[in-house]
Order: sequence, then structure tokens, then C-alpha cells
Amino acid sequence: MSGSVAIVGLGPGDGSLVTPAAQAALDRATDLIGYIPYVARVPERAGLTRHPSDNRVEVDRARHALMLAAEGRHVAVVSGGDPGVFAMAAAVFEAVEQGDPAWRRLAITVEPGITAMLAAAARLGAPMGGDFCALSLSDNLKPWDVVTARLEAVLRADLVVALYNPISSARPWQLGAALGLALEIRAPETPVAFARAVTRPDETLRVMTLAQAREAPADMATLVIIGASGTRLIPRGPGERPFLYTPRSVPAGR
Amino acid sequence: MSGSVAIVGLGPGDGSLVTPAAQAALDRATDLIGYIPYVARVPERAGLTRHPSDNRVEVDRARHALMLAAEGRHVAVVSGGDPGVFAMAAAVFEAVEQGDPAWRRLAITVEPGITAMLAAAARLGAPMGGDFCALSLSDNLKPWDVVTARLEAVLRADLVVALYNPISSARPWQLGAALGLALEIRAPETPVAFARAVTRPDETLRVMTLAQAREAPADMATLVIIGASGTRLIPRGPGERPFLYTPRSVPAGR
Repeated sequence: MSGSVAIVGLGPGDGSLVTPAAQAALDRATDLIGYIPYVARVPERAGLTRHPSDNRVEVDRARHALMLAAEGRHVAVVSGGDPGVFAMAAAVFEAVEQGDPAWRRLAITVEPGITAMLAAAARLGAPMGGDFCALSLSDNLKPWDVVTARLEAVLRADLVVALYNPISSARPWQLGAALGLALEIRAPETPVAFARAVTRPDETLRVMTLAQAREAPADMATLVIIGASGTRLIPRGPGERPFLYTPRSVPAGR
Repeated sequence: MSGSVAIVGLGPGDGSLVTPAAQAALDRATDLIGYIPYVARVPERAGLTRHPSDNRVEVDRARHALMLAAEGRHVAVVSGGDPGVFAMAAAVFEAVEQGDPAWRRLAITVEPGITAMLAAAARLGAPMGGDFCALSLSDNLKPWDVVTARLEAVLRADLVVALYNPISSARPWQLGAALGLALEIRAPETPVAFARAVTRPDETLRVMTLAQAREAPADMATLVIIGASGTRLIPRGPGERPFLYTPRSVPAGR
């Protein structure tokens, strides 16, 4: 069994944020598997068979990759951002655990990428400069009461909170509920960032207060960052977006 | 004022994990500022003045960068990993906020990098596959009771926990205390990873149980990942390290 699976992070979108290691894994692949828009980011070339698939079929996609590798193919499974953050890496290992024991002998590697919250943070300043967490707001794979219990815990612990998968057509109200919970715990003037399609041509970055955030539009391409008590803005000149950052220090008594 | 500051993430160590955007920022720089081992990662070249500095002088280093940029220089401030994660980005914005108002008009950009927890996760499997957090265990910049309150909150909320800055010669007991707290809340068989110098020649990856972790050696180059209740190992063949991963799903009632 000489096939392989490389689970590759393509970063937020701009080609200059794809690591050379990720690019090398793509260059070695005979087969490319992933959600349609991520497969579309990798140019066609001779010797590469592309297998784009629809959203929300992650484990099917993972099994397909493992079956091809078991036949000796060199498969790249692509994710946006980092494959280990709410993306394909866990799905592949779930399929390995539950599937053909021979799959455990395959060469399976993960090539990390720049995940959305760190790409967004870099564009905004340094909002993740203190302790932080990443939560998926989707209740497709965990009960909503687990989502809210975790969110409440990290809000009370004063971590910066990055919300992945904040909203979709099937989950229209969860982001509003999450921001409502945040407003019960954090000050209404807490900075919140909505970072959409970071580094892509349709990028939009909006920084507002937590009180304003409940009325702000968002979509599946949006990453939401809720500041901690120390997170603040540095105003700049007219027409310039302020820097958003979280100091490293936490004063005693907070 | 035509100078600039680029705060650049060098990733975990291997050159193949430096993004092309980070490399371009290094190539444009006239001056290079950072902690000695990070400056040493960037080759010398004509036209580049290197200003290596010792550890724990982050704000002095940041002010130096801003002063040079105010003189028209193009400064790259380098961090290992991602500069927005317990690294130089927040220090630069602290210096901007407290310093010469003219510094706010400088071109200040952040080039993200592969942060240690995601580099380690990629080597191990997909341990950050569910909700997770990143905490600095250092009490140099925040009171120890804040560290432990945050740690307790995220342990109870069943997040995967990445501990940055777990130990140093000046902070020899904090990691043991943190793991002791984890043992009060999580099962003794919870998987824990100690990932040291990931992707560098002296890389070591150790996966053990939480009960074993209290006796395991660690140093400043170690990143500690404490698994959640769902985190588990997939055994492989003799002599092969098991895959470590956290499933995406959380069952109801957990």
C-alpha cells in the first residue's frame, strides 16, 4: 500500500498565504478532493484528477480519499484556512478510525495553513493578542446547549472569542443568540469584528461595538471576533481603519 | 513619513512553512528586529541591518522598530509562529498606542504565520478538531489567579487547551500546577501532547495520558495540548506513532 493522503490547508484565499509545503503537497498529488470552491483554487494540470464535492459531505469525501490512496493514488484533500480547524483533518481521521484497518498503514500527513481567525487578526491589528478561543457556532455536529454553555464559559473567563461558521441559511438565528448572550456578559462597547472573505477580492472588514453587532449582516464567509475586556481600538487619520488589538497584559483584579 | 513596519510570522521553524507573503516582507526590509533566534533564521544580505535583541524586551523592541520606520526605514519585526499569538504584534500596537501620535500614520502591517499549536496539531493528527483555546501559562503579564481561573473555565467547558509558554527557569512550577488542575476536572486517561521544537531538527513529539503528563519534562520550546473528552488515539502499526484527533461531533448530554 504505497498511496498517500495529504490534508492540505490553502489558507484564507490569497495565493501568497499558501505555504511552500502545502504547494509541494499539491504538486505531488494525483487526485484532488474537497469542497468545490477550494478545489477551484488549485489550477488544473496534466496528471491531476479533480474530485470537487458539495458542502457537508466531509466524511464521504474523507472515505473517498482513503479508498483512492489504498489503490496507490496520492491524494490531496484540500481545506480553506487550516485543515485542523473546523475542516477536513478531523473528518479524515474519523473515517480512518471507523474504516478499513488497512487505512491506518497509509501515509497520512497534514499540511497546516493560515486559519481564518489569524488571517483576519493580521488584517485588523492584533485582536488575538491575549488568551483566545475558537468556537464553531454550528449546531449540526453538537447540541446547541453545548454551544451556548461553552460560549458562556469563555465569555465569563474574558477570552477573546473567534466564532467560526457563525451563520448559514439553515442556521439563521444562532449568531444573533450568541451575540445576545455576549451582551449579557460583556460591555456593550466591546469591540467586535466581522471579517469576511479575508484576503480575497471581496474582502470586507467591519469593526463595531458589541451593541451594534446584533444588527450587522453576516454570511458563511464571515469570521466573527468578539473582543475581551482589554481589547481596544487605536484611532488613526481620517478614512483610515483604526487598529484593533488586545494588550498582552491583564491587570490584577480583572 | 514613508517608512513601514511589517510584523512577520516565521512559522514554527521549517522554511517550507514560511508563507510567500512573509518572505516578500522580509525581502523588502531594510531593518530586521526580533528575539535573537528568530533574527538568526533570516539570512544576512546586503542592504539589511539586523538588530537582534534578548528575550522579554518586547516593548523596547517595538519602539525601536517604530522609531526606525519614522525615519523612513522599512522594518521587519520577526516572531516565531504567528506574530498575533503571544508574540510581537500586540507589543507593537501597545507601543503605537502609548507612543508618538505620528506613529499612527505609519504603514503597519502584519504577515500571519503558522502558529505552534497548529503546526503541532498537523504533526500529531487533528487534536484541535473541535472547539479549542490558546492560553499563555506565563504570569509575567497577568496574575496567576487569572491564569488558573481561565484554565478552569475552559477545562470545565470541555475545550481542547493549547498551553503556550508552559515553563521557564523563572516559572518552574506553573505547568505542574496547571496539569494538576486539569487532573481534577478531566479523566486521568485524557490524551496530552508535548510538542517541542516542531519542524525543527530537534523536534520531539510525545503523546501520553494526563496522569503521566505531570511527570514529563518540558521547556520553553514545548507546546502542551490537553485533549477534550472526545480526544482520542488511533493505534497504528508497531513503531508508528498513533494518530491523535478530536472528532468534530459532540454527542448530546456531554
